[in-house]
Amino acid sequence: MTGALIIAGLGPGADALVTPQVAQALARATDVVGYIPYVKRVAPRAGLTLHASDNRVELERARHALQMAAEGREVVVVSSGDPGVFAMAAAVFEALEDGPAPWRDLDIQVLPGITAMLAAAARAGAPLGHDFCAINLSDNLKPWDLIEKRLRLAAEADFAMAFYNPRSKSRPEGFARALDVLRAACGDARPVIFARAVSTPEEELRCVPLPEARPEMADMRTVVLVGSSLTRVIERPQGPLVYTPRSVPA
Amino acid sequence: MTGALIIAGLGPGADALVTPQVAQALARATDVVGYIPYVKRVAPRAGLTLHASDNRVELERARHALQMAAEGREVVVVSSGDPGVFAMAAAVFEALEDGPAPWRDLDIQVLPGITAMLAAAARAGAPLGHDFCAINLSDNLKPWDLIEKRLRLAAEADFAMAFYNPRSKSRPEGFARALDVLRAACGDARPVIFARAVSTPEEELRCVPLPEARPEMADMRTVVLVGSSLTRVIERPQGPLVYTPRSVPA
Repeated sequence: MTGALIIAGLGPGADALVTPQVAQALARATDVVGYIPYVKRVAPRAGLTLHASDNRVELERARHALQMAAEGREVVVVSSGDPGVFAMAAAVFEALEDGPAPWRDLDIQVLPGITAMLAAAARAGAPLGHDFCAINLSDNLKPWDLIEKRLRLAAEADFAMAFYNPRSKSRPEGFARALDVLRAACGDARPVIFARAVSTPEEELRCVPLPEARPEMADMRTVVLVGSSLTRVIERPQGPLVYTPRSVPA
Repeated sequence: MTGALIIAGLGPGADALVTPQVAQALARATDVVGYIPYVKRVAPRAGLTLHASDNRVELERARHALQMAAEGREVVVVSSGDPGVFAMAAAVFEALEDGPAPWRDLDIQVLPGITAMLAAAARAGAPLGHDFCAINLSDNLKPWDLIEKRLRLAAEADFAMAFYNPRSKSRPEGFARALDVLRAACGDARPVIFARAVSTPEEELRCVPLPEARPEMADMRTVVLVGSSLTRVIERPQGPLVYTPRSVPA
């Protein structure tokens, strides 16, 4: 008998943002696999084994999940946010491509989730309301020069931007350089949103003009959104609304 | 008494992809406002008035929703997908900024949803598994030249790409030009995914190499995903899996 592998997105944190599709998959699973804080979000129950592992072991975790599925188990790999956006889905497919041929016969499904940039954008207004890009600012798996190149081209294209993994203890310098590149390429005071732990009790939201953005406003739980040249801020007593209009004048 | 305005994302089509947060907002609403096919997805009930309107009247719809909220009603504006991605949230904020000052005191919330590109990516594998951009290919509200410029810069940045509104009866030519620009800028056979009506009974998924992509493979219900230069296709008996690896070699 062959099992099944589901790669599911838990959304940014709140249970109210987990889709019913994902909730049903978790209710049927025999094994849940993932990074420790994400597996903690899954309630234990009889018949379910939780396999929590540390950060930076994504490929080992993916192989373990594929192996258990090949043994006939109903495995769910959990990611925060959406599994296809800087998360576990690509790691599982890397492991699948390099793994034993029979793994390709497995029933594999990816279940989407609310990714951090969209949860953050919703809290801020609609800063990604027009063409935008999403960039992972970690240089663990790609050269830093490529990150800078993409930032410059994104500014030239006048995309709104969303940055994942802006800053960590092991990479304290990169985000400062990224902000310098953006300030030079944009040359204006467009809004920058620092959205931390959106939808959780630790949620913090902060909006500053690009010249005032500081590296220490972000950590690994923060997603950073940068407006396009047309992004607007509506000031209100209860806090600003930031949005990018649908139109670009000719 | 002041009402509230919620701008909610219904996801790509299936009820199993509507978040509990959005379902709760719909259960409490006095008025639901939106484009006809999206309002049709909301079940009628006593105490709820459904206000369905045609396409291309987004600003009028937004003003109507804000006005009803200002009159003390509990209004939900519904969008397909995520309201902040080429949908109603930006239109509401445009109307708010240009509208009467008291509208700024309203309690306004955006509730995120599963946007079409992420539902499509999940069905295909993980084609947006690394840095990517999202571009609306309609030139109704922006100059066509800007679209071509963004396509060229996105190719130069080696982003994976997602295209919304690739083609409609009133704009049959643009997508053909977009494909020509991409073929010239990319110069390779990277995979292109045409994902139509994902998660609905009309769902169709097709993956072709860029040189074989044809305009008529897309319509207004299609989201188009284009890989980066590193995107890979894993062939399997049950259909290919397309993914963009997490790493970029130095």
